[in-house]
Amino acid sequence: MTISDIAERAGVSIGAVSFALNGRKGVSEETRARVLRVADELGWAPSTAARSLAEAKTETFGLVLARDPHNLGVESFYMEFFAGLEIELSKRGYSLLLQVVGSTDDALATLQKWHRTRRVDGVVLTDLIDDDPRAAFVADSGLPAVVVGDPGIAGGLTSVWTDDAASMREAVRHLVSLGHRRIARVAGLGSLAHTRIRDDAFAEETGLLGVAGELLRTDYTPEAGERVTREALTGAEPPTALIYDNDVMAVAGLTVAMELGLGVPGEVSIVAWDDSVLCEHTLPKLTALSHDVVAFGSHVARRLFDVVAGSEPAAFLDSTPHLVVRGSTGTATRDS
Amino acid sequence: MTISDIAERAGVSIGAVSFALNGRKGVSEETRARVLRVADELGWAPSTAARSLAEAKTETFGLVLARDPHNLGVESFYMEFFAGLEIELSKRGYSLLLQVVGSTDDALATLQKWHRTRRVDGVVLTDLIDDDPRAAFVADSGLPAVVVGDPGIAGGLTSVWTDDAASMREAVRHLVSLGHRRIARVAGLGSLAHTRIRDDAFAEETGLLGVAGELLRTDYTPEAGERVTREALTGAEPPTALIYDNDVMAVAGLTVAMELGLGVPGEVSIVAWDDSVLCEHTLPKLTALSHDVVAFGSHVARRLFDVVAGSEPAAFLDSTPHLVVRGSTGTATRDS
Repeated sequence: MTISDIAERAGVSIGAVSFALNGRKGVSEETRARVLRVADELGWAPSTAARSLAEAKTETFGLVLARDPHNLGVESFYMEFFAGLEIELSKRGYSLLLQVVGSTDDALATLQKWHRTRRVDGVVLTDLIDDDPRAAFVADSGLPAVVVGDPGIAGGLTSVWTDDAASMREAVRHLVSLGHRRIARVAGLGSLAHTRIRDDAFAEETGLLGVAGELLRTDYTPEAGERVTREALTGAEPPTALIYDNDVMAVAGLTVAMELGLGVPGEVSIVAWDDSVLCEHTLPKLTALSHDVVAFGSHVARRLFDVVAGSEPAAFLDSTPHLVVRGSTGTATRDS
Repeated sequence: MTISDIAERAGVSIGAVSFALNGRKGVSEETRARVLRVADELGWAPSTAARSLAEAKTETFGLVLARDPHNLGVESFYMEFFAGLEIELSKRGYSLLLQVVGSTDDALATLQKWHRTRRVDGVVLTDLIDDDPRAAFVADSGLPAVVVGDPGIAGGLTSVWTDDAASMREAVRHLVSLGHRRIARVAGLGSLAHTRIRDDAFAEETGLLGVAGELLRTDYTPEAGERVTREALTGAEPPTALIYDNDVMAVAGLTVAMELGLGVPGEVSIVAWDDSVLCEHTLPKLTALSHDVVAFGSHVARRLFDVVAGSEPAAFLDSTPHLVVRGSTGTATRDS
């Protein structure tokens, strides 16, 4: 016998049975009484209950990353995010089950397997695409989950998000206030929903302010950042300011400008997103959209513990990345 | 009944029973025949066998990291190492179970719990200290494991190591050949065995070549790297060359030298260890001890699969980090 037998007989969810047998909040007294009566009728012994409930609890959260593992070490975002998750998990003796796969389909298959074999108490979903099949599966299966990203792509699941559009607009306004009229955005992977949100905000804000906004697509690697920066700065109508989608591409862009003999910020301004220790140790130090990614990871973990405990789905806004102005942005002096 | 009952009755290991029942290599035909006979005598049904074997195989490797999670995102080593592990794990549908804890004792407790509750097929041990209790536990318990580090600290377990002493001597000889007579080593955490191996090699090689070798201790953070570099370069007898234990400290050191108006490599030479994309995107680019950390992680994972399959303990030398000379090291010109 399992607790699902009790759930079926009592006409309630497995979670409600678990709550009732454990004496935890989250079910009405009426439901609790019915569950306990059914459990008694079925001869449910406390020792059996204890064992089944212990088996149901894996003390593990899962995360499947659909990224090329060869590029994972390049930027600090994921390591900081994992570190933030681990800060909360370690307080409760939880582990993180991590698998890197090649595609969204493989990620879905892994989540299905973990759910089927009861490997995790809940999962964190990152890098969502539009109409993401992972969000749909998780919503259907009832596997506790938190989506890292905009509520608009979370498919009704609990989400923790940052207002990337607001951050992008702040960066564009900062550059325009310094006199820049030709700004380039060095963007990350176009398949990711949050990249598109940044793309749209960049296009809207440059349009609104009447300045030229050029979109340069990359795969987040410093090689790509270097290449598109060189092409842009040696082109016919070079930008006087660039906003990069990660820190290593911004550092690569700074180096390209210096190699071309262009002063930073005298001739070219540079903004990095996210901020990192790297941005504070270049010369000049990099102006950056700063977000505490470690705290973000901890926030996500706390919300997932809440979901596992039965909280209703909700969207939680994490702190909005804000502009930290350092030495790499200044008044536009070139023809622009 | 479990497969350990069969193992006990047949007088063989649980692993041998598993191999025999699965029809896999690794046991003699004689053993296979005995195991199958005992299984038959005990009424071992194929369906039971299938279930028990499935339970015994978790398709998971574990890694407990005894590090401050707040500092994890700073350097690229661990993310690249995890990426390398994941490349091999994902080929076989394996996941990585990751837990970050505060101390070696907590790491030991986590390993003991994972072993007791059969959460992992094997573990990777990193950041070993002298007489490490984790290595002793793993050796006693029979939990399949690979030690990342010098065979001298692996307690007889399978190890995958890099010859850090040889790499350090190469870096020192390079600097001495350029005329440097006062060299500083900006070292990482003194509690780690591989730090001590590098410390010793640095002291020995500078002593052998008759140059001054100064040891500066840090916690791997760029803040610490910046502080000790500033103290050393503004001291009474400043070094003309510095060797850093990671990439972010080397970048921080480069920035300090520039802020002090000291040319690199004209007045100060800088060597980073490990190499990273970061080292290729500073100005000048950083001379570095280069090691393919992603490949190192993959190597470790492959050896752990071998150990799980029954391979005898052995020490495997991974490629030795070699010096990639770039723009940050040059002829010593200051009084030295």
